[in-house]
Amino acid sequence: MGEIDLSRIRITSLKRISVDGGDVLHAIKRTDEEFVGFGEAYFSMVEAGAVKAWKLHRQMTLNLVVPIGEVRFVFFSDSGKARREESIGVSNYCRLTVPPGIWFGFQGLAEHSSLILNVASIPHDPDEVERKSQEEIEYAWETGK
Amino acid sequence: MGEIDLSRIRITSLKRISVDGGDVLHAIKRTDEEFVGFGEAYFSMVEAGAVKAWKLHRQMTLNLVVPIGEVRFVFFSDSGKARREESIGVSNYCRLTVPPGIWFGFQGLAEHSSLILNVASIPHDPDEVERKSQEEIEYAWETGK
Repeated sequence: MGEIDLSRIRITSLKRISVDGGDVLHAIKRTDEEFVGFGEAYFSMVEAGAVKAWKLHRQMTLNLVVPIGEVRFVFFSDSGKARREESIGVSNYCRLTVPPGIWFGFQGLAEHSSLILNVASIPHDPDEVERKSQEEIEYAWETGK
Repeated sequence: MGEIDLSRIRITSLKRISVDGGDVLHAIKRTDEEFVGFGEAYFSMVEAGAVKAWKLHRQMTLNLVVPIGEVRFVFFSDSGKARREESIGVSNYCRLTVPPGIWFGFQGLAEHSSLILNVASIPHDPDEVERKSQEEIEYAWETGK
């Protein structure tokens, strides 16, 4: 398998619709170009400054949306040669679509906990997830480099 | 069409998994018994004390999860004869599955804004939604009666 091209990670602006009593925020529709199937929706909280890293999904396509707070996502190709970073959340309300085969980690950037929704293409399956400890891929989370 | 039985609204306990740096919260899997298809996922915010009411979906099945705050949902049958209330959120972490043909409204019960995720069986379609003003169905939101 060749080295994955990180430009295959798609970032899509989403609508936040102003409504009396509380806004409506889009996440994903089955008619969206990036949608490849529904397996499971689940949330991950990430505390202020906390880092969760590293994971790689062999089969799952992730659709990541941050309706509360701000989160920095960092992506690496399998060899570690290519890197990409995207920060999304309330101030940059977007969806990140992450194809399989990419190492990723993330960090809470808000002063309070942030909330991530993943609309995943397959249900959770521990057999398709690979993990590395935070130290195994070099990245300076404190400075974002 | 006969009067809908509000016991068809399903309430399902969900897992909140304790994780260093931020918990993982289940929402819905395609293998769950209540799952009837994926159309769209979107969020609704609801401010402290705010009420959003009333809507009825002719086709959409809603799957409602509240990962932030607490929300009271109130359901009425078409005739207004049958009523059901369920409060879900962080302290009662459940999914409400609401079949089509039921009037519903909701209110934010937390001191801060609450967040609702709807994993809907069809994409948003204004033609399948009916609305009534808050006054058209009698309910005392301030006391929950």
